This record gives sequence, C-alpha cells and structure tokens, in this order.
Amino acid sequence: MYRTHNCGELRMENVGEEVVLSGWVQKSRDLGYMMYTDLRDRYGITQLIFNEQVTEKELFESARTLGREYVVRVKGKVIERQSKNPNIPTGNIEIEVTDLDILNASKVPPFTIEDDTDGGDDLRMKYRYLDLRRKPVQENLFFRSQLAVETRSYLSKEGFIEVETPVLIKSTPEGARDFVVPSRMNKGQFYALPQSPQTFKQILMVGGFDKYFQIVKCFRDEDLRADRQPEFTQIDCEMSFVTQEDILNTFEGLTRYLFKTCLDVELPQFPRMTYDDAMRLYGSDKPDVRFGMQFVELGKEDLPEGFPVFDSAELVVGINAEGQAGEYSNKDIKKLTSWMQRPQIGAKGLVYVKFNEDGSIKSSIGKFYSDEVLAQWGEKFGAKKGDMLLILSGEEEKTRKQLNELRLEMGSRMGLRKPDDYKPLWVVDFPLLEWDEDTERFHAMHHPFTSPKKEDVERMLNGDHETMKALRADAYDMVINGVEIGGGSIRIHDRDLQSKNFDLLGFTKEEAEAQFGFLLGAFEYGAPPHGGLAFGFDRLCAVMMGQNSIRDFIAFPKNNQGRDMMIDAPSPIHDEQFDELCIQLNLPEEEA
Amino acid sequence: MYRTHNCGELRMENVGEEVVLSGWVQKSRDLGYMMYTDLRDRYGITQLIFNEQVTEKELFESARTLGREYVVRVKGKVIERQSKNPNIPTGNIEIEVTDLDILNASKVPPFTIEDDTDGGDDLRMKYRYLDLRRKPVQENLFFRSQLAVETRSYLSKEGFIEVETPVLIKSTPEGARDFVVPSRMNKGQFYALPQSPQTFKQILMVGGFDKYFQIVKCFRDEDLRADRQPEFTQIDCEMSFVTQEDILNTFEGLTRYLFKTCLDVELPQFPRMTYDDAMRLYGSDKPDVRFGMQFVELGKEDLPEGFPVFDSAELVVGINAEGQAGEYSNKDIKKLTSWMQRPQIGAKGLVYVKFNEDGSIKSSIGKFYSDEVLAQWGEKFGAKKGDMLLILSGEEEKTRKQLNELRLEMGSRMGLRKPDDYKPLWVVDFPLLEWDEDTERFHAMHHPFTSPKKEDVERMLNGDHETMKALRADAYDMVINGVEIGGGSIRIHDRDLQSKNFDLLGFTKEEAEAQFGFLLGAFEYGAPPHGGLAFGFDRLCAVMMGQNSIRDFIAFPKNNQGRDMMIDAPSPIHDEQFDELCIQLNLPEEEA
Repeated sequence: MYRTHNCGELRMENVGEEVVLSGWVQKSRDLGYMMYTDLRDRYGITQLIFNEQVTEKELFESARTLGREYVVRVKGKVIERQSKNPNIPTGNIEIEVTDLDILNASKVPPFTIEDDTDGGDDLRMKYRYLDLRRKPVQENLFFRSQLAVETRSYLSKEGFIEVETPVLIKSTPEGARDFVVPSRMNKGQFYALPQSPQTFKQILMVGGFDKYFQIVKCFRDEDLRADRQPEFTQIDCEMSFVTQEDILNTFEGLTRYLFKTCLDVELPQFPRMTYDDAMRLYGSDKPDVRFGMQFVELGKEDLPEGFPVFDSAELVVGINAEGQAGEYSNKDIKKLTSWMQRPQIGAKGLVYVKFNEDGSIKSSIGKFYSDEVLAQWGEKFGAKKGDMLLILSGEEEKTRKQLNELRLEMGSRMGLRKPDDYKPLWVVDFPLLEWDEDTERFHAMHHPFTSPKKEDVERMLNGDHETMKALRADAYDMVINGVEIGGGSIRIHDRDLQSKNFDLLGFTKEEAEAQFGFLLGAFEYGAPPHGGLAFGFDRLCAVMMGQNSIRDFIAFPKNNQGRDMMIDAPSPIHDEQFDELCIQLNLPEEEA
Repeated sequence: MYRTHNCGELRMENVGEEVVLSGWVQKSRDLGYMMYTDLRDRYGITQLIFNEQVTEKELFESARTLGREYVVRVKGKVIERQSKNPNIPTGNIEIEVTDLDILNASKVPPFTIEDDTDGGDDLRMKYRYLDLRRKPVQENLFFRSQLAVETRSYLSKEGFIEVETPVLIKSTPEGARDFVVPSRMNKGQFYALPQSPQTFKQILMVGGFDKYFQIVKCFRDEDLRADRQPEFTQIDCEMSFVTQEDILNTFEGLTRYLFKTCLDVELPQFPRMTYDDAMRLYGSDKPDVRFGMQFVELGKEDLPEGFPVFDSAELVVGINAEGQAGEYSNKDIKKLTSWMQRPQIGAKGLVYVKFNEDGSIKSSIGKFYSDEVLAQWGEKFGAKKGDMLLILSGEEEKTRKQLNELRLEMGSRMGLRKPDDYKPLWVVDFPLLEWDEDTERFHAMHHPFTSPKKEDVERMLNGDHETMKALRADAYDMVINGVEIGGGSIRIHDRDLQSKNFDLLGFTKEEAEAQFGFLLGAFEYGAPPHGGLAFGFDRLCAVMMGQNSIRDFIAFPKNNQGRDMMIDAPSPIHDEQFDELCIQLNLPEEEA
C-alpha cells in the first residue's frame, strides 16, 4: 500500500495514528540531530520529522540523502507539532517517521517548483512535467476541470444532450486555414480537422436532437499569438425552435451559474448593446464596460474652422480621462503620443485638453481654439476640474479603433480594469455581411450560416448591392471585461435563403453544392428553426481567473511556432508513411 | 414563441389550456370532415385534431397540405381524447388546433422515419439527418450522453481531474498506423493524431496530478471492420501511488455504478481469471462467461493409439454441448464442420461424440476408439445422456483459437448468450512480451510502458532470452460478455527499466531517445509509481445496450472505406493548400 492518507488531510484528531504517506520532497531542513522534511502531493504538504534520538541510525542517514523532488513513501506516527504553522491546513501536526522508502530519486530540477519559479518560458515548456507540479499551474487546470464539470451539469439539467461530432471531416476554404490529414484508404484525398462543429450541430438540429452541446477541440492553422493556439476548446451549443431571446437567456443563465458555483460571484443581469452602439461608444465590438470613458464626438458645431487637421477630418472623437490633468506632464503626453503612433496602432497624433484644478485650460491645440470653445468641449465630455480630454481625428473606422486602444490603455493606467470586477454584456444586431474593399466581395461577419433578421429577409432576397451592406443579423457575442467569451447566431434553415447567402459570399452554385450540398439537402427535409452559440472555453477559464493568457489553462500548450517543446512535435515522418499516403515533400529549394 | 410545451409532456391535467407546440409531422389520417395528425419531437408525440366543424376552412385546407416530416408550429387547446391511446404518455389528450404555421416543408423522405425503417445502410448514412430522427438511433445517442455524464460524475467524486491532452502530437511507429497532419509552420514536418493519450497521462502523473481522466477521441489509421472506426472514444484514466489491486477496485466500482445508474442492473463482483487460465479454458483472452462449456483436454492417458490425427496432434481439446446430441443430424454436423473449415477459422476437421438418450454412444471416430474409451472421455467432460462432445486437434495455439470460435457459436445457437445477461470479469497476469516468430522480435503485449510484475523485474533486467518470454506484467483487461471493454497496466516509472524494455522491443538507443526522450527524461525527475486503464467508450455503450455494432452509437460514423457518406469526406484539396504545406501527391501510375 502506498498511502493511508494524502498529504493534505491529517489534522489534530489524527494524532496518535499510524499512517502511510507518499509524495514528493519539497524541501528539507537538517538541524543535525533532527531533520524536517516537507512532503508534497496534489492535496497539500505534510511535515515529516526524523529525530536522531528516536529514529534508527540507518533511517536517519537515508533521510539525509533525500533531495528536492525525490518520491518517497513513509510510515510513521502523527504527532502534535511543537511550533505550529497556521498557514497550511496540516500545520498542527507532523509525522514522526519510522519507515522510509525511496520510490524514485530525482535529479536537481532545472527550475524551482515554487509558486514563483525562476524558470523561463522555454524551459518550463520543455520540462512541462515539472512546471505542472507548481501550484498555480495545477490550480488553473483544476479550475478548468471544475468549469467543465459545472458546464456539463448545468446543460444536462437543461435538457441538452452531449453528442460527439467527428474530428476527421472535410476541408472548406471558407474561414480560417484548415489542418488537413491525408487519407490512406482514399488516395489523393484529405480529411480536415474541424474549425468548429458548425454544420454537424445544425445537422443534429435537422435530426431532431433539439438541444445539443459539446465541449470539443477545434483546430485552426493560423499564425499564432499569445491568446491563440492551433488547437483550442469550445463549449459548443445549438437549440431548435428558439428565438435569439431564448438563446441569450439560456446562456446568460449558464454563465451566471458558472460564476456563482466556481467563483461565488453573483453576476449582474447582462446589459445588451447593439453592435452600432458598441462601435460608436467604444470603437470595439467587445467593449470593456468595467469603466465608462465612452467616446464623445465633436461635430461641426463644436469646431470653428482654424485647425486644419480637424477641419479636414472625417471624425473627431475623444475620451475624458477623469482626474488625469495633473498626472500627465508634457513629457508624459509625449510618451503617450509616441505609444499611439507605434505601427500597431498607427495614430497620426494625439490632442489633449487639460482642465486644471485652478480653472485654467491647457491644450496642445490651444492656439487654434479659444478657451470658450474648449470649455464647450469640456461640457460635452462632462469634464470636471482636474480632468483631461484625449482626442483623435481622421478616417472614421481607423480613428475609432485607435481610440479604443487608447481608452483601454488609460483604463489600465488608471486602475479601472480590475481582474475580479466582472462586467458582462451581450453585443447584438451584428451586420450580416462585411464588404471587403480590397477583394471587392462580401465576407460573412459571423459565418455563412447566420440568418438575417426576420425583417431583413425580404430585402436580402430581393435587394440591391447597397441594401446588402445594411442587412442586420440575429447574431450576438457575449463579452466579459473586453474579451469575447462566446458568440453565435440564429441560423438559416431555408434552402433558398442559404443559397442566396452563399451566392452573396461569392460561391458558385457548384462550389456551394460540393462543399455544403449535404446541408442544403438537409434543409429540404424539414429543417426546424434553430440557433446556437459557442464559448471559447480556454478564454472563459482565463477571464474567470482574471488572467490574460489562455496558454496557462492548457495542460500541454504549443509555442508560437506551433511546436510542443516537450515531445518535440511536429517531426519528420518515415518514407513508408509517405509511400502509404501517396504524398511527398515539395520543399522550396533553400529548405529542401 | 415557438412552443409552450414539447410534444411529450401534455397530460390530462393540462386539459383546457391554450398551448403552442412545434415539431415534425409524423403522419396524418384524413377522415374527410376531420383530420388527425401526429406531431413529433425528441420528447414524444402529441395528436393534433383539425375538425371541419370547429376549424376555419382556410386552416383545414392548410392542414390537408401537410406531408410527412413537415415542420409546423400549432396553437390550440388541450382537450380530452375520445379514444385514448394507452401506449404513449400523451395518449389521453389531443390538441384542437386553432392556428397552424408551416415552418418548413419537406420532400418525401427516401426512407420511413420509423423504429424499423426500410432504408438500407448506405442510404441511411447519406441521409444521416433523417436517420437521426428515428427513435432507436436517438435512444442510443441519448444513452451515450447519459453514460458520459455518469462516468464524469463518478470519477469527479472520486477525485479524478479531467485534463485535455493534445490532439496534434508526434508520430511514433510503434502500435497501429498514425494519421498524420502536415505542419505549415514547420515545413516538412508532421503532427500525428493520438492513438491514445498514453504518454501524456503518464506525464500528468509525473506532474503530480495524482488522478486523471478524460473522455477523449483517439485515432487509428487501420483497415476497418464493423466494430472499428478511424476515430473512436476512450474513457482514459491514470492514477499515482497505486497497485494493480487499487486500480481494479476503482474501475470495477465505476462499472458497477454505470450499470446501476444507467441500466438499473446490479453487477456481481467481478471474478478474476489469469490470462493462462483464460487461454486454457476458453482459448481466448476475452472469454464470454455467460455460459460454461469450458475446454477439456484429452491427454495421452485418454487416447490409446490408433487414430493418426490425434496421435500426432500437439493438442486434443473439446467442449461439451449439453443436450445437443439429439439436435444434430449427420447433415447438421457436416454443416458445422464446413463452418469450422472456412478460411476465417481454418479447422481441419471436427470430431463429435454423442451420448444418446438411449445410452448408446455415436462418434465420427467410433472406429478408432472403443465405447469404453469414449465413455471415459464423457466422464472427463462431465457429459450426461443427450450431450455431445465437439473435439478439435492440432497445433496448440491454433486449435484453442478455433475451439473458442466453436464454443461461441454453440453458445449462440443454444441461446446461452443473452444480451441483457451481463457477466463481467477481469483477466489478469498478461505476459509482458509476445515473441513474433516471423519477424523474430518481441512485441509489447499491452504497450511499451507496461511494467513487469515486481517479482519479475530482476529477471527482466538480467535474464536471458527465454526468460523474457515468461515475464508476466501487471496488465489487466476488463471483459464483459466476451467483449474487451477496457484494459490497462501498472506502468514502468524507472528510467533504466523503461530503457531495457525499449531495448527488448528492438528500439535502438537513438530511436528510443528521439521518440520517447521526454518520458525517459521525466522518469529522472521523481516519477511516482502509477498505472491506469482505458475503456473503449463506444464499445461500452454497445455492450451495455446489448448490441454488436459500435457504429450505432456514433452520431456520424464512417463506412468501411473510412468515408463520411453524408458530407462526402475525405475529398481533394486545393493547389494552394498543397503549396502552403509543401507537399504534393505521389499517386501510383494507375490512379494518378
């Protein structure tokens, strides 16, 4: 037997018991005549004591050989500690060891197994098995496991059936890039890994499953950033005979349940904001509403001619950074301006207007506008003494995006984005289509299966090109603290409307049939009205734990080159494999 | 609003209520002045009534246009039925319809949506969305969903953490053939899809996770049979600081819980049988113990010389088919012999000995052996009057396998293999290695990470070639009704022992390092003793529901050519994709 108890459960009431524990040596303190060793497992830490006066000499010598991360089994008696440790649940007792078995030795780890480790990212990814022993990493993954349990529990109670959809499916050129898998049995053909189970869950609705969910791996072969992984996990859901309202209520319910059970946080009711309002007031379709600082636009009436930059701008828009007038020296403003001018943001400049505590007004464009005009702006922004306006101008869409970055940066600097202050909302009424000026074609704003709003169906079927740009969809995103947690839509369930949509998106009849013929076919055999949504599960974990990187919630993440540093994958394959799959490499000269 | 109730929940107490229902038209009966329509959804069937005398003419005409599988929404009043239907839960009521909305029309389905359909396999796979509407298919998938819920519930309560392991991993030539995925970012290199998360779950144990589980998709690129799919699902588990006994008890507990909660079946305690006994008594490592008919061997003492076939045979072994003497005419015996001689089984012949009710003995080899000798056999087999011995002879291993097939066939013919009679057992003490005469090398009987029994470790590290053949492993299979439901082992956690095992399996040092270096490395940093097992989830579903094909428990199965008939995958990919992945086709001439 390896243990009678784990390392986290012994208490005062166990004093006097003979116990067996197994675990890892966290650290030892050798006082010469006495040795204390912390024994660690997933459940906690228990102190072992080796006493030269009580213990056999051989055992004491053996205890002396224990290094960090050795795996041992000990037998001994639970005794009361002389100096108790109130910081750990087992802090009142210790184990007087009578038997010691070294189950496995350990080399000295390349970094410390502590909450704050000295290991760099690469080292920790390579020795992931050691990093996984650290408490913060374990806690993240335990949280993820709990979140999955609670998600399933809630959705099951609500009548959702979990159905596994296939991983080996078909490549479709829409959306992101597919990972593909050569088929040995169907030579020259390829499976694709799913970017989402979208069409399958719709097929399940056509098949009468009514309420479906799945916590499922999805795959995108895209260039990677900190919050993107080639494989990621979704909570994928679909319902039949529902309106958008039904779906929002169901998944607001799920989210509130998860926050309550996993974090003991009561979320407020989720406000709803139209896409148009989100773009107008925050310059983003995923606004962080933990703080205000909404956009205020300056119009012709606010801008007497004189400052050429504003005079010629499509949009002049700003935010009011409350209480910041005294915080920003000219040098600080200059730094902030440079930050805005980095290529990632690309602002041309940044205008400030300070309303100083002494009543004076100071602005980078004071020579173009009178104090009266600036005061009028202040009123429009609701600025008080001590506040500072930050104003951008230029082409409308770009300027809003830039101001969104500035608003978020100022929110962070001003401490208004607390990780444990959760502010959810629904963004609704997304446009159906997005016009791409470069390629002169429409893209689906959500995906090609999204339904236009009922009142827009007629216009979609019969309208002209300009009409299409104005179509609104029953599409919605759940946003928490500026992060898009989930999104979905009511789907098209009518063959003609779906064909029209494929048409608008530039599919030929043949392409639509080849790629989605099964779905169009399914719509001819009694498809019910349906809709759904998908949560980014990795991201939900991160947001709930107030962290930024999804990587810390994935047991075996890949790096930015898509590599698993521990197992060293991907890797070359054997000639036999190439032969069986009837493929060969075709590397560019310099790499071949 | 699409519905106030579903189609399975209205009862007498709802009579008088105004309700809205949505669903599919199952069928209609038009009596001229009156029309009855069955409305179906996942939850049940509710009868709608359109009454010419009550209903508006327009509504009545519209109802007449409804075809099978039309999707409709109706509004109406719940009324008591005149002729009640006790066969369905809603059989006491019907809906007097006042509003009818046709939500979607349907073409006539290519097969009937009934419990017993007239659709063939191919048609049903192509129109999977229609097949999914049939009750037996839905029930199988609902059962699967429930089984997953209960599995997670049990394991979570037992302290297991569900951790997702990666799908994009590394190709290893051991075991079955890998599906591979070309990497765009690491040109010329490939990921592989996991055949199981084996090494990752071991790494999680090294990482201190203590108890891990996952319900997880696995992949094997093998030629397919009815009970094999290229992607399949496992309940994958691993535990630290455990002995084989701990694991058997834990997962026997899980299995008993699943049978109790999902089927209301109390399983008996699982008997344990050594691999040697299973092979000796049943000729199989997954014996069906719903019935006896154990193998009985005839030795030199039972076989006076005279029948050359037996005289020269390595093994003479048979079974007693109770009460079958009178059931098998010479012609029947001949047929059974032919069945055994098919190439799939390959027996050379089949000897019978009948102990007739009248006391006479009849045998195909009566002229070689006296009645006294045959009677002596009868005693050895425990045969009574009316019984029939069936005896095979030949090379030991082959003969046992053939007799296993015969035993199962006789069990089926005699009605001894009832689907709802569940007889589980553990088969234990598997050999560690299997010697392959053809390739002259060892294969791992379970997998390369399986530990020899403690008492065999010394022999493994220092023994000679013959010793290796006799090594036993802490490896075990769970078998129910002749089906291997799960299997696992205690793993090696010592680097030297693991290296020795790779060595025995024919890996060079370099190969072992390239493929499993991370695991060997992990064993140097305090790997705990650990072990686990994996259940075939699809198969568990099928066995519990008393069915043979796992395909009926998979929402979107592939056919024997690995094709998804509905979406028509796999399929060709675009030139751009080939270019980005730096691969090209290399088809044999005739297919290019």
